[in-house]
Amino acid sequence: MARANTQIIFKARPTGWVDDSHFEVRQSEVGSPGDGEVLVKNLYMSVDPYMRGRMRDTRSYVAGFELGQVLQAGVVGQVVESRDPNLPEGSFVSGMLGWEQYTIAKGGLMKIDPELAPLSYYLGVLGMPGMTAWVGLNNIGKPKEGESVYVSAASGAVGQVVGQIAKIKGCHVAGSVGSDDKLAYILDDLGFDAGFNYKTAESYGKGLAEACPKGIDVYFENVGGAMLDAVLARSNPFARIVACGMISQYNLEQAEGVHNLMMIVGNRILMQGFIVSDHFDQMPQFHAEMGGWLKAGKIKYRETVTEGIENAPAAFIGMLKGENFGKAVVKIAEA
Amino acid sequence: MARANTQIIFKARPTGWVDDSHFEVRQSEVGSPGDGEVLVKNLYMSVDPYMRGRMRDTRSYVAGFELGQVLQAGVVGQVVESRDPNLPEGSFVSGMLGWEQYTIAKGGLMKIDPELAPLSYYLGVLGMPGMTAWVGLNNIGKPKEGESVYVSAASGAVGQVVGQIAKIKGCHVAGSVGSDDKLAYILDDLGFDAGFNYKTAESYGKGLAEACPKGIDVYFENVGGAMLDAVLARSNPFARIVACGMISQYNLEQAEGVHNLMMIVGNRILMQGFIVSDHFDQMPQFHAEMGGWLKAGKIKYRETVTEGIENAPAAFIGMLKGENFGKAVVKIAEA
Repeated sequence: MARANTQIIFKARPTGWVDDSHFEVRQSEVGSPGDGEVLVKNLYMSVDPYMRGRMRDTRSYVAGFELGQVLQAGVVGQVVESRDPNLPEGSFVSGMLGWEQYTIAKGGLMKIDPELAPLSYYLGVLGMPGMTAWVGLNNIGKPKEGESVYVSAASGAVGQVVGQIAKIKGCHVAGSVGSDDKLAYILDDLGFDAGFNYKTAESYGKGLAEACPKGIDVYFENVGGAMLDAVLARSNPFARIVACGMISQYNLEQAEGVHNLMMIVGNRILMQGFIVSDHFDQMPQFHAEMGGWLKAGKIKYRETVTEGIENAPAAFIGMLKGENFGKAVVKIAEA
Repeated sequence: MARANTQIIFKARPTGWVDDSHFEVRQSEVGSPGDGEVLVKNLYMSVDPYMRGRMRDTRSYVAGFELGQVLQAGVVGQVVESRDPNLPEGSFVSGMLGWEQYTIAKGGLMKIDPELAPLSYYLGVLGMPGMTAWVGLNNIGKPKEGESVYVSAASGAVGQVVGQIAKIKGCHVAGSVGSDDKLAYILDDLGFDAGFNYKTAESYGKGLAEACPKGIDVYFENVGGAMLDAVLARSNPFARIVACGMISQYNLEQAEGVHNLMMIVGNRILMQGFIVSDHFDQMPQFHAEMGGWLKAGKIKYRETVTEGIENAPAAFIGMLKGENFGKAVVKIAEA
């Protein structure tokens, strides 16, 4: 039985900001799974900053998107036809699937438990972004009780989790965000100790000085550029910079220059990049710890849900511009 | 007995390049040591890039030089009058003393063995610069056999030692230098595998591509700025950047911008600053290992010796401009 399948195709490679012209909505049909395959009805898909890197022609840490092909994303879905005995019809799964209504997959899917948390959480706090926060803080940031932890893009999919973990660990936690609503959210709902709206602060340096009066011991870096410069100037001796992403730079043809790197020498700063997929061996510990925190109400979580696969490009573009509030996901269908 | 004592005074704080106007030569007299003190006849003093940082008014990792006071330096000297039973007259010592012919000191001196190596070596390969190379490579760079190690300022006090240690560890070793003579030295005398003259290379990127055809696994960073940018673009996944110094930036009022920091995320690069004095607990191991390598002829070492305390400012200025060849020292007197 062929099913109608709306797909989003990667039509043109952006050099600066991404816009609608880089996508094409295609009406297609999907057939039945072959031996060992399953047909997944996609329910939610994730839009994430790292995808901008996959749109480049240059090497990135994950394979680039191919022009003319369906874009890929983290997806939560349900198996609707199965020729894989491990994934019977009705199973809920997550995996790297397409920007489309249905995907035929062979392997690479993980069964998920719809009772533990809302399905979309497996794209966020219980998925790649949540694990990114957890791995980056634990493996590189190593915050100690009483230290000052600062996270940029603090209301985002990763940032909101970073701050809450750091609070659990007894740190002074500060964050920057791009609107007063988001600032109120991290302060009032998530329990951050301090924060500022980087768009209205007199300067990043001033915002940081007020938010982290004792300097910065751990910086969870999501934005790069001028913010990184301001953080370097405010870092304490032996500070750690968890280099998770630099979203402020992704849409620039030439990245901003960072001028304060000499602070790395004098203050013995450690700056280290990481990719969450290198650490998937830690997933069982992550699921156990994060699942426990969610159940105990110690971690809160907020999403922006865009309805409809045809609106996925707009959701992605909006996320790159900071228009989302919390984790950005696209709802493709009801379970 | 008062002795005539020529001293170099810190007269004015430089903002860009250092020149003669920032120093003053003063004729003075030195008296006799008090209880627990020794009078040291200074034989050699060190001029090092980090001293430029001590000339700033802003915080650095060592206390700033005070205007109107005698400048400080690593010095090797001989005790000529002693009221400290641990350091009898005739002892050879090293320590942080003054840019002057005699210094009265109380504590902070280390006895050195004039039989093990020439006295000036205690300011270089057996002193702070040599230990800087050893600590930075061992604690942060952690080069593995077969990896590519690149060091900038490769014929300098630290760089020449870095390259030779990396060769001992079985690495492909490349360096950049500022003259063809220095290039011949690191290739022919020190056994580097490759190198380039950064002043005449078509670009840093091209020089690095030829010197490190398999990319860079460990970068021992002595210069910063545009060179760091070029290294980031050429680094392999999981590369380590040992942030030892950034001499190209010290005399700029505004540091150059570094644009390729996004590579830190994608390539999971670790960049870490360090200060050798944090690691003085490792000094016994350092002396044992480096002493053994020197004795076995596995480490060679080159110095530029400037004669006369009154020429110390010129030696320092020349070192900042790269005019020295190997470790820059000033010979103040014969033992």
